[in-house]
Amino acid sequence: MPFTTQNAFEALAELRSRKPLVQNITNFVAMTVSANALLALGASPAMVHAEEEADDFAGIADALVTNIGTLSPAWVRAMQDAASVIKDAGKPWVLDPVATGATSFRTRAAEDLLRRGPTIVRANASEVMALAGSAGAGKGVDSTQGSDAALAAAKALAGKAGCVVAVTGESDYATDGKTVYAITGGHHLMPLSTALGCALSACVAAFSACRPPLEAAVAGLAVYGAAGAIAGERCPRGPGHLPAELCDALYGLDAEALSAHSTIRKVEG
Amino acid sequence: MPFTTQNAFEALAELRSRKPLVQNITNFVAMTVSANALLALGASPAMVHAEEEADDFAGIADALVTNIGTLSPAWVRAMQDAASVIKDAGKPWVLDPVATGATSFRTRAAEDLLRRGPTIVRANASEVMALAGSAGAGKGVDSTQGSDAALAAAKALAGKAGCVVAVTGESDYATDGKTVYAITGGHHLMPLSTALGCALSACVAAFSACRPPLEAAVAGLAVYGAAGAIAGERCPRGPGHLPAELCDALYGLDAEALSAHSTIRKVEG
Amino acid sequence: MPFTTQNAFEALAELRSRKPLVQNITNFVAMTVSANALLALGASPAMVHAEEEADDFAGIADALVTNIGTLSPAWVRAMQDAASVIKDAGKPWVLDPVATGATSFRTRAAEDLLRRGPTIVRANASEVMALAGSAGAGKGVDSTQGSDAALAAAKALAGKAGCVVAVTGESDYATDGKTVYAITGGHHLMPLSTALGCALSACVAAFSACRPPLEAAVAGLAVYGAAGAIAGERCPRGPGHLPAELCDALYGLDAEALSAHSTIRKVEG
Repeated sequence: MPFTTQNAFEALAELRSRKPLVQNITNFVAMTVSANALLALGASPAMVHAEEEADDFAGIADALVTNIGTLSPAWVRAMQDAASVIKDAGKPWVLDPVATGATSFRTRAAEDLLRRGPTIVRANASEVMALAGSAGAGKGVDSTQGSDAALAAAKALAGKAGCVVAVTGESDYATDGKTVYAITGGHHLMPLSTALGCALSACVAAFSACRPPLEAAVAGLAVYGAAGAIAGERCPRGPGHLPAELCDALYGLDAEALSAHSTIRKVEG
Repeated sequence: MPFTTQNAFEALAELRSRKPLVQNITNFVAMTVSANALLALGASPAMVHAEEEADDFAGIADALVTNIGTLSPAWVRAMQDAASVIKDAGKPWVLDPVATGATSFRTRAAEDLLRRGPTIVRANASEVMALAGSAGAGKGVDSTQGSDAALAAAKALAGKAGCVVAVTGESDYATDGKTVYAITGGHHLMPLSTALGCALSACVAAFSACRPPLEAAVAGLAVYGAAGAIAGERCPRGPGHLPAELCDALYGLDAEALSAHSTIRKVEG
Repeated sequence: MPFTTQNAFEALAELRSRKPLVQNITNFVAMTVSANALLALGASPAMVHAEEEADDFAGIADALVTNIGTLSPAWVRAMQDAASVIKDAGKPWVLDPVATGATSFRTRAAEDLLRRGPTIVRANASEVMALAGSAGAGKGVDSTQGSDAALAAAKALAGKAGCVVAVTGESDYATDGKTVYAITGGHHLMPLSTALGCALSACVAAFSACRPPLEAAVAGLAVYGAAGAIAGERCPRGPGHLPAELCDALYGLDAEALSAHSTIRKVEG
């Protein structure tokens, strides 16, 4: 049975009930909106990135998200340490390889983390293609590739790294390398509000504490996409209020609104 | 004469007139909302945390707030240095021991700072109990204890550390170990918007530049609680706009609104 | 022919068409609002400050803004390295010397960066006077000098450093040391929302990728001033929603609104 928006809502209901503690090692721009999105979704966020405590905290977290948007060598070590603890405990880890390909420092960091076996990689098309070894270098943090162009790269990356890949952009896909889901939702203003992709990665991490990786990715994309669509409609003048409206939409999302504003379709496998 | 909402409003009027310069060494998630809350309240915020300058800046600040939400060893040193300068100058210092108890790194930092004699500790119930040596470990940064359960711990902590303790949650209390004030206000959405407790600590620091510690804590809790209640009423769909509404409510708060949306009651001492 | 609001709108149209990639090495409080303002304006922001990659990234950026609001020694090195790459490539660099004069650490950093030859310095009156060697020390990050008082200092600074200086406050000026433009716009609430001056510096950097330095500064001040005026009118209760409204106003700004809400006047040269 393919995963449906009804299944996504059931995952959301479980998330709201369990309130998973999500450890974020994320970039400075994404911290506030990620924390607020996680709270609105129903999770419990914690921003803990110091190498002196990231591994300790991973011991009590239900899921981890590592985002390389604003790196330093100390933070790379903290990500490695926290990921190691999370993996040893059998808990899920989402990697967001922001702007990998833009500098050798972050490409090396992303590739090193990828080799350590994240549960899910959530990225835009340029980032997935860079990680998969395809052509198509990123321009800063905004993707220069449509996500359709990256689907083949996503499947290749999922197969190579043994993880689920969630690639987002004009179209959103989640794949474990064999099965592919296409998810619709979102709003054209979303790329004009900073770090909403990063906050999505955090939300996917929260779902990964409640569902197997592919289902978590699909549920996260559908819930976030529906909330984004609702939020965008409430922003007639521009992207300024989008983060606030996104949080309200996540907070108030019910099964009807979810299925009215997003679709989930199994397209392969 | 017990402190009243009328006294709290007089403290606010003095704060707005004096515009105290509040030095914040605070976590990355709290910086923006703390700065905006301080500006809306009428204070002048500065985020100065580098160990190369934190002590210099403490020389010109009117009050200091140290918040251990996102620590590093260098920041711990900056907090120690700035606190030393502030204390030597007889100026007030508020400690927010975010998630103390969650990792040994932050517990050590919080306990070290506590030994250095903060003027006021502003914390949630789990944090107060952790600092007081009570049971009740924190789960991330969100309290797992009601604030009523922490009142005894707050009194013990205030006595042990020789400071005022402001504990917030479902109920808010301020105590110097003998006298206890209960303050009402706030809104059920406030825990769903990140770092609003941190911003409260910053506002209490601003009040501490204008009033003795216990009065400053009570005034800060009442003013912030009233603003939170007003803001929450203006957020019918969820917590997304709460930080913005909170700033507007702080900015526009008058004596009538303050006494209509918060209460101050002396319950002991 | 003096530069007009019509010219400023043409610069904005070109910016929206070219979407310059602006590298921000900026303070923690300014990052989110700077990124969102740049996106709303039509630019592509990237927050890349690690010394391990700041210079690499400067190779692909169209413009650089360095803001010393929350410094560390590693960030100072990253600013120096990125500025060197940008300058060698003939691309523009905007320096925002936040609170220079408040501590010797940041004064040294600002003076060192100034000696390296920024294209444009965007600052408030206290900061310009501190950099120009005038009296008038800053109080934290908020200017204690009117910008009129700083015009002489701005001209002296521009002459001494061979750059354009954009000084903002109650009145806004841009000067290359000989020609002086006065720009009106803005709203009295703007100083009550944190880091809006920092976000202005980032927007000026985006314009500097599309126009010569003096025109870029004038266009940036006029566009931002008009958007600020529009945003302020949409915030009847206070500054809480100002960042969001500012982004919406930047996003929707057309030629009519620009000329209705700001003026550009050549006052010298």
